[in-house]
Amino acid sequence: MTDSINFHNATAEDILSLDKIRATLQRMEDTIVFRLIERTQFAYNRRMYEDGAFPELRDKEHWTGSWLAWNLKEVESSHAKLGRWTAPDEYPFTSLASLPAPILQPVDYPDLLHPHHVNVSQEVLRFYTEDIVPRIAARKDGVEDDRQYGSSAICDVEALSAINRRVHFGMFVSESKFRADPAAFVPRIRARDREALAGLITKPAVEAILLKRVAQKAEIYGQNLDQAHIVDERQRKIQSQEVVRLYKEFIVPLTKEVEVDYLLERYVRPTDAGSTG
Amino acid sequence: MTDSINFHNATAEDILSLDKIRATLQRMEDTIVFRLIERTQFAYNRRMYEDGAFPELRDKEHWTGSWLAWNLKEVESSHAKLGRWTAPDEYPFTSLASLPAPILQPVDYPDLLHPHHVNVSQEVLRFYTEDIVPRIAARKDGVEDDRQYGSSAICDVEALSAINRRVHFGMFVSESKFRADPAAFVPRIRARDREALAGLITKPAVEAILLKRVAQKAEIYGQNLDQAHIVDERQRKIQSQEVVRLYKEFIVPLTKEVEVDYLLERYVRPTDAGSTG
Repeated sequence: MTDSINFHNATAEDILSLDKIRATLQRMEDTIVFRLIERTQFAYNRRMYEDGAFPELRDKEHWTGSWLAWNLKEVESSHAKLGRWTAPDEYPFTSLASLPAPILQPVDYPDLLHPHHVNVSQEVLRFYTEDIVPRIAARKDGVEDDRQYGSSAICDVEALSAINRRVHFGMFVSESKFRADPAAFVPRIRARDREALAGLITKPAVEAILLKRVAQKAEIYGQNLDQAHIVDERQRKIQSQEVVRLYKEFIVPLTKEVEVDYLLERYVRPTDAGSTG
Repeated sequence: MTDSINFHNATAEDILSLDKIRATLQRMEDTIVFRLIERTQFAYNRRMYEDGAFPELRDKEHWTGSWLAWNLKEVESSHAKLGRWTAPDEYPFTSLASLPAPILQPVDYPDLLHPHHVNVSQEVLRFYTEDIVPRIAARKDGVEDDRQYGSSAICDVEALSAINRRVHFGMFVSESKFRADPAAFVPRIRARDREALAGLITKPAVEAILLKRVAQKAEIYGQNLDQAHIVDERQRKIQSQEVVRLYKEFIVPLTKEVEVDYLLERYVRPTDAGSTG
């Protein structure tokens, strides 16, 4: 199954087709649900998110930030060597200046997005660590720290990375819709009318379907198909309303913000303007 | 949901309870299925598995092995700092001597397994790259290389790591069954009778249920719940018979090998022997 866009083997027109973008966004839902489920195996472990809570990191790695931030930096450095952050749909949490250069020759990506400064990674990090983890990792037995900091961090890095890619993918939606109808967008961009721009890219019916579909995925992937050896543990791996809440309260509104921010920064050619008459 | 054993907060008796081990093994099935599904997003990319196929790795990283092996080394180095390979249920593909020391104080794990040299990581690597990936990543359009080497390698590392942990977990099964009935095991260990030892730890009925459950998980998690924008792509994410085949032909027999190898190396105390009468 390859619903996802392959930036290596596609033209800009193919990548920016709204059908292809929607298929990719839907495939990302599965990844996000899978990764949240994996995180629920471990306790909240608040200590992981507090700056300086692991003196070993300061002593051995000169790191004064959080355990999670250090883990993000480690993984993102390794992925930087793979060239991950040169792809037009990938945004690291660590600042690019702290990451190493790619090993492979840079891929010649098609011309997709206009240059921009949109990056909401820190907002994603905030809502994930403050609003999502404490709820999905809440345990019946009340244990808030199980000392599984390595495993928890690995899951966090993967879940965060999937959510971050999803949110920033909104820029492809904006670019696709802009190209389809520049005349509708140009006057609103010039007027810096956020509300009107949001109106142009938002479809409440699509959003309602999205939330329904995400609920269904969480319901199905989150069920416990194991035998009930220990009756008390035969429960869902994740509550589907938590996944719906993640989308409804965080992913959808933040994606909209990304979409509008990108449009406001997007270069408007005289010909785009001209077409508004 | 926390079916999995937490080595940080449990006694040896708790960890070695057969119910707990079975629950952990079942939870691992979900992880394995999820990660195989993620890998199916990308083509086979045979080049990733061939030594020296990426000259950039040789030039910039002095690495003459494969792209996958380099990725494993990168990720496993980072996880070594997290202390992952000091846990009694974790085995890296990279040789331990090439990996850095942990940053955190070593965890004081309970006494579980006897010292042993069992490590079948290279067998896992072989069947995964030669028998599993070419089949699950086979595409209708016949594309065998999509150049998504970074993303494919990330998925491979995660799937391999889950499968490897599953296979080596067999040692806990052996240890648990040995402790429950040393008198049955000791004479067979002394006689180095592999077949009899395999008979003591194998339950065909449990295996049949396992394969049925794995088929069900692959069937349910591998369905495509997306809207059919592009009709031709509305297909399953993974064929469930491929996951069953992975378990039946590779994971189950290799786990059995691990279980017997461990028993043959296990230290037998005079009191264990005495209890055989």
